[in-house]
Amino acid sequence: MRPPTPSLRYDTGRNVTEVQMDVSVLGLGAMGSALAGALLRAGHSTTVWNRSPGKTGTLAGDGARGAETARQAVAASDLVVVCVTDYAAANDVLDAAGDTLRGRTVVNLTTGTPDEAHDVATMLRTRGAGYLDGVAHAQPEQVGTASATLLYGGDPELFQAHAATLRALGDAVHVGADPRQAGLYDLALMGLWYEAELAFLNALALVGSSGVDAETFVPFGRTQLGYVVDALPDVAAQVRDRSYPRGPATLEEHARVLAQLGELRASRGMNSDHLAHVDRVVRRLIGAGHGGEGFTRVVEELALPLTD
Amino acid sequence: MRPPTPSLRYDTGRNVTEVQMDVSVLGLGAMGSALAGALLRAGHSTTVWNRSPGKTGTLAGDGARGAETARQAVAASDLVVVCVTDYAAANDVLDAAGDTLRGRTVVNLTTGTPDEAHDVATMLRTRGAGYLDGVAHAQPEQVGTASATLLYGGDPELFQAHAATLRALGDAVHVGADPRQAGLYDLALMGLWYEAELAFLNALALVGSSGVDAETFVPFGRTQLGYVVDALPDVAAQVRDRSYPRGPATLEEHARVLAQLGELRASRGMNSDHLAHVDRVVRRLIGAGHGGEGFTRVVEELALPLTD
Ligand SMILES: NC(=O)c1ccc[n+]([C@@H]2O[C@H](COP(=O)([O-])OP(=O)(O)OC[C@H]3O[C@@H](n4cnc5c(N)ncnc54)[C@H](OP(=O)(O)O)[C@@H]3O)[C@@H](O)[C@H]2O)c1
Ligand SMILES: NC(=O)c1ccc[n+]([C@@H]2O[C@H](COP(=O)([O-])OP(=O)(O)OC[C@H]3O[C@@H](n4cnc5c(N)ncnc54)[C@H](OP(=O)(O)O)[C@@H]3O)[C@@H](O)[C@H]2O)c1
Repeated sequence: MRPPTPSLRYDTGRNVTEVQMDVSVLGLGAMGSALAGALLRAGHSTTVWNRSPGKTGTLAGDGARGAETARQAVAASDLVVVCVTDYAAANDVLDAAGDTLRGRTVVNLTTGTPDEAHDVATMLRTRGAGYLDGVAHAQPEQVGTASATLLYGGDPELFQAHAATLRALGDAVHVGADPRQAGLYDLALMGLWYEAELAFLNALALVGSSGVDAETFVPFGRTQLGYVVDALPDVAAQVRDRSYPRGPATLEEHARVLAQLGELRASRGMNSDHLAHVDRVVRRLIGAGHGGEGFTRVVEELALPLTD
Repeated sequence: MRPPTPSLRYDTGRNVTEVQMDVSVLGLGAMGSALAGALLRAGHSTTVWNRSPGKTGTLAGDGARGAETARQAVAASDLVVVCVTDYAAANDVLDAAGDTLRGRTVVNLTTGTPDEAHDVATMLRTRGAGYLDGVAHAQPEQVGTASATLLYGGDPELFQAHAATLRALGDAVHVGADPRQAGLYDLALMGLWYEAELAFLNALALVGSSGVDAETFVPFGRTQLGYVVDALPDVAAQVRDRSYPRGPATLEEHARVLAQLGELRASRGMNSDHLAHVDRVVRRLIGAGHGGEGFTRVVEELALPLTD
């Protein structure tokens, strides 16, 4: 992380800012430090604060101003970025800032649930502050590069007003007017990661139980996951249209394979709660006359009814 | 499906065969007909049979010989491909062929379980026939093209002896000396497909329950699944080495996210048996001192212990 020089400031491509803004960053853990570093590199006048002292050293060398208290840090800028361990910590920090928050915009990049985001948004509204709830899809070392994506939920006008500044941190995507949306996307994507990862690990465990080594299986797994990835737009269109053509196989055919798979997994001592649930859903759909439709049909049984 | 001409026969790239073989195909459903068609296009002398009459028309026009009975069809060729609905049907067909099977090689492309393949292999051994158990990863219209992959389990020498002929059907991959292996791969890959597909559908259902439309979510889903695909070789190496570096997060950190995700999904009426099971596994691992390791560590808890 090298100090920005005046000449570099207008030469570094995507991190260039036309307007130098005042931004404060509260919380200088791995992520908060990376955020502050990226803002400094983009030329913003950056004030930083951390609960325990001794974390501002490098950032000060890069041009950051250190604040003594959270309240002082908030008072220094209209745009206040918070990135601490969890929402309990974020609430501690915001409580300490008190009425200094009035008229400012808080961007909270702390990881949490949609409900936690909703509660902070409500609290800040009563204090007269604007709120964007964000999640960073990035490791700290990716912050400020094209490989970082940050999702934001909250008032779209507020997002527009600060988008140019926020782009210093990475791709800035507004995912909805409700501050719950960023956390919702984040948890949904985490769930996608866990389930896809488990899909592969379960397949590995199954073939591994017969002595197939993991690396031999990789190209097969890659091809199979490739089919899933390639079909995402079609699957999404089916969900949108609530129309489920049979595709590679009908629910009737899937029921047979699911039964075989369940039996095989059970014989290897593998948990199949998940597949057993899907098996029940598929059988119920067949019973209701949907046996000729495709697998995507199960989506309507996975959550409470989608609002049309 | 156009009739092969003698000049084409040695000019069509990957489907060219240097040696014209005698092959019989028993079962002319969607898949069996496609297999016979590909063999004919590759220049093999192909005999076909189907239980109900009237399915040989187009194939005869392409040069296939029709057999009156399964036994006659088996008697016509050293290599006998069977592709019928299920293993009960395959056993019917092979029983009808009786002692004509002696000295021939049966390639069974009927879908079934590893145990079913094992039973056919045993039965054929007592009748003096060789056996390769195969699965076709292809739709019928892909058979005979580069986008079809067929997996075979069974005696490697037998596979080598027939590989050139089998390549007429698509990529031919030998996955192990045990005839159970092809069915095992097939079910493991089907499981991977179901679980990855469900991973995406669950994510869609979750964001959909808050009004996010499915197509908006596609690029996010694609990126996330891309991370999983890119990491497959690393994950496989970790499983091989039984060494699980933390990667993007530790099991301690995953436990927190899994708890949040489980709670959110429950609030949307979503089944989370699968994640609850993983959550229990992760907590048990943390209790046993593995909290600083990465997510791949769970693989050792998914099936009966891997043989080293
Ligand atoms: N690191 C990543 O790869 C990554 C990626 C995406 C998102 N995130 C999210 O970013 C957030 C921060 O992560 P991190 O990696 O920076 O964590 P970290 O390195 O552990 O830093 C935690 C920060 O939170 C502060 N903090 C904790 N409790 C506090 C309290 N009650 N009052 C004031 N400050 C408090 C800590 O201050 P002290 O120094 O005084 O303890 C420290 O600055 C988390 O929500 C994390 O999920 C991290
Ligand atoms: N189609 C695909 O996309 C696909 C892809 C991969 C694998 N497969 C597998 O390939 C196999 C065949 O599938 P398919 O699509 O060709 O099915 P299909 O079109 O329904 O044809 C079934 C075939 O099995 C025959 N058969 C059924 N019971 C029989 C019995 N007891 N004795 C003799 N013959 C019998 C049928 O003969 P009749 O004409 O007399 O009924 C027919 O030839 C299945 O195991 C399937 O899972 C299919």
